[in-house]
Amino acid sequence: MILRADWVLPVARDPIEEGEVVVHNGVIVDVRRRSGTRGGADVLDFGEAIILPGLVNTHAHLELTALRGAIEDLPFFEWIRRLVELKKLLSEGEWRDSTLWGALEAAASGITTIADTTDTGASLYAMVQVGLRGRVYQEVFAVEPDADASRTLRALEDRLQWLRRSTQGTPVEIGVAPHTLYTVRPHIMQTLRQYTREKGYPVCIHAAESQDEIALLERGEGKFAQMYDGRGIPWQAQGKHPVDLLHEGGWLDERTLLVHCVHTSPHHTELFASSRTAIAHCPQSNAKLYNGIAPLSDWLAQGVRVGLGTDSVVSNNSLDMFAEMRSAVTLQRAVHGESSCLTTRRVVELATLGGAQALGMAERTGTLEPGKQADLCVLSLAGWHHFPTYDPYAALVFSARAGDVLMTMVGGKTIYQHGEFPLLRESVSALRERLRHTVRRVRQALSDDGSG
Amino acid sequence: MILRADWVLPVARDPIEEGEVVVHNGVIVDVRRRSGTRGGADVLDFGEAIILPGLVNTHAHLELTALRGAIEDLPFFEWIRRLVELKKLLSEGEWRDSTLWGALEAAASGITTIADTTDTGASLYAMVQVGLRGRVYQEVFAVEPDADASRTLRALEDRLQWLRRSTQGTPVEIGVAPHTLYTVRPHIMQTLRQYTREKGYPVCIHAAESQDEIALLERGEGKFAQMYDGRGIPWQAQGKHPVDLLHEGGWLDERTLLVHCVHTSPHHTELFASSRTAIAHCPQSNAKLYNGIAPLSDWLAQGVRVGLGTDSVVSNNSLDMFAEMRSAVTLQRAVHGESSCLTTRRVVELATLGGAQALGMAERTGTLEPGKQADLCVLSLAGWHHFPTYDPYAALVFSARAGDVLMTMVGGKTIYQHGEFPLLRESVSALRERLRHTVRRVRQALSDDGSG
Repeated sequence: MILRADWVLPVARDPIEEGEVVVHNGVIVDVRRRSGTRGGADVLDFGEAIILPGLVNTHAHLELTALRGAIEDLPFFEWIRRLVELKKLLSEGEWRDSTLWGALEAAASGITTIADTTDTGASLYAMVQVGLRGRVYQEVFAVEPDADASRTLRALEDRLQWLRRSTQGTPVEIGVAPHTLYTVRPHIMQTLRQYTREKGYPVCIHAAESQDEIALLERGEGKFAQMYDGRGIPWQAQGKHPVDLLHEGGWLDERTLLVHCVHTSPHHTELFASSRTAIAHCPQSNAKLYNGIAPLSDWLAQGVRVGLGTDSVVSNNSLDMFAEMRSAVTLQRAVHGESSCLTTRRVVELATLGGAQALGMAERTGTLEPGKQADLCVLSLAGWHHFPTYDPYAALVFSARAGDVLMTMVGGKTIYQHGEFPLLRESVSALRERLRHTVRRVRQALSDDGSG
Repeated sequence: MILRADWVLPVARDPIEEGEVVVHNGVIVDVRRRSGTRGGADVLDFGEAIILPGLVNTHAHLELTALRGAIEDLPFFEWIRRLVELKKLLSEGEWRDSTLWGALEAAASGITTIADTTDTGASLYAMVQVGLRGRVYQEVFAVEPDADASRTLRALEDRLQWLRRSTQGTPVEIGVAPHTLYTVRPHIMQTLRQYTREKGYPVCIHAAESQDEIALLERGEGKFAQMYDGRGIPWQAQGKHPVDLLHEGGWLDERTLLVHCVHTSPHHTELFASSRTAIAHCPQSNAKLYNGIAPLSDWLAQGVRVGLGTDSVVSNNSLDMFAEMRSAVTLQRAVHGESSCLTTRRVVELATLGGAQALGMAERTGTLEPGKQADLCVLSLAGWHHFPTYDPYAALVFSARAGDVLMTMVGGKTIYQHGEFPLLRESVSALRERLRHTVRRVRQALSDDGSG
């Protein structure tokens, strides 16, 4: 099969004008300037478009899709408290539907690989249904001071076993996500570190997202401290920054993905670089929830492994990696001025190859190169906002919208094209109808709460 | 005519679920909850959509559309130097085509009112062709130390007379835009101030956009100073911040629109508030060109009149006011944290009513209220990224993209619907074909320059 377009962007090398990508058995076998004008049944010519590597979203919570836009204009602490309350409203079936909708949006947005953090476990089902590549990190919460390590571990193992069974023959892997240092007790963290290391599970942890998290861990102060205090949950401040605690706990290594790391210093950058710890950078979520701007420019200058992540649609509110790239660039340039090294080309690398490297999947995906899986998306340049296109990198970062995506392919299989999801066995309209019931119940709860 | 949708957002009051807007003779006569289910030839039901006031873009340079994405990854000074060079490439006819394409993009993006700053004068033609409301500010440059005031004024008067003739019977007004204090000499500024005041022209000036501008005016230093020095153009530093110079020059009043004002202090905020000077806030352009983040939260807290502007597509790179709203919110929240007062509702107000107030057009446009002109747009909520929608404000700011716009109406006339421009007398494909020639020449020049 040959895919053609005005531009092919291999990321691994310079853009190719009038390019084509040759795919055989799900693998890329050539990326080149178009060879003559021969058409045929095996040639797909997208014309005024860019073929680029499938986007790698290094942090999402697909299961939260049914709550998109339900919690607005609240600072992080109040936002996460409300989220915990709203999560109680959904049943297991509703979580599956919610997650599936998120996976559909991802595929329609040009995303081919997702690192999804899941409480309910529903993301594996959704990603497999839609045909996405990626990793599902099973979340662990253990905030009670007397949380039992072996019971926590048994529950986790049950869940992981169930997940593992369902991944066979799919491009989805399993990992473990101790939620944060303020929702998992130190002794449980220790047990999880031993366990994940023994079993070889990759790890994902939210860290240094808000000032209140740091205030709790360093000094036993701030909104989280007040909340625990108010509920009679004792919390002993550990006197250190979360990243330093993770370092001491042996978590910083190349199998660990830290999410956010907004409030980190050059000293932490050195730790990330020397330990090869990866970071999922979520600029829009960080900004929207009033948390701030992470030191991305510093990380890149020091060679830290970084990918971009949308985070959930409760804090973004869409899975638009083009918007995420734009925000990554504009936020860094706005605060660092000319000392920011973030070019359009560099941020497209982050959203593709950088993400694949952060997840340890760069041998399979992240660029258009012979030998890699045919993970790609095609972005239309036909819109008003794309004419003219002098530079495909600028088009992707500063003009493109997820709605411009024409087609998304994973391992040579088309998972999205022109509004359709070829691998999906469910009816989208039935799914939407079911979700409407969920939405009505959530709205009712919001309105009872006086906030809707 | 009755326009219906799942949501009507009057901005002047709370959102109406299952709402409708009644339009008669181009004027809004009622905004209400839908009255029964009666259909009919005069009822347009958009279903899953939001009807909102037409967006007010308080700063654009539509004529630069053909240069979209031609100058990337350069800091402000290098960017504007390159822009000046590229502008030399276009002929009068090409400027008209370029501007018209920009006006089409604006209409397709839900914009109904534009304050456009034009060097060539082409924007009036384009806005009238497409049916947009707004104001065209004729730019004045006069950087030569011996620039002749009366000659400059005669040239301006000729241009204004020509523009005035073409505005008769259109919803477009005329203004004057002395470009900046570093491209118009003080004695010319003085002449222009007298002239615009006498004739009652509204005024638009770029001010405090970059640190280099301030360094030149305050201390005779920085990149602009070095450039003038290198070219043997003498420049006497005026020892003051541009906004203070404008204040002394009598420019700060309610007929003046200042653009950018990135590097301004609380003292300047007070000046803006007490003088009723309006500001066109362009967060994406400010960030993208490494200039920084303007003190929007402070302006709003002090009651300064502020609208949002996209600036040109050379510094943005699209006319997507939804993206602009999102950036306005995320940039403020990122730097000011919880002390930022920028809610989703407030920023939607800025993009509609706030812009209309900044331009002195709020009696005609900016909200959906009986008695105002029927300036509105309809945004589809049918996309993956819009489901579910709990809150129309959050949908507009955090999920919406300009590509979701279904229809745009100015004064009761549909100027855009489903890819068509009913008022346009030209062929879009012929326009595009002509622009392709321009683009080829610009690409050639970029490539000769070693930068393409």
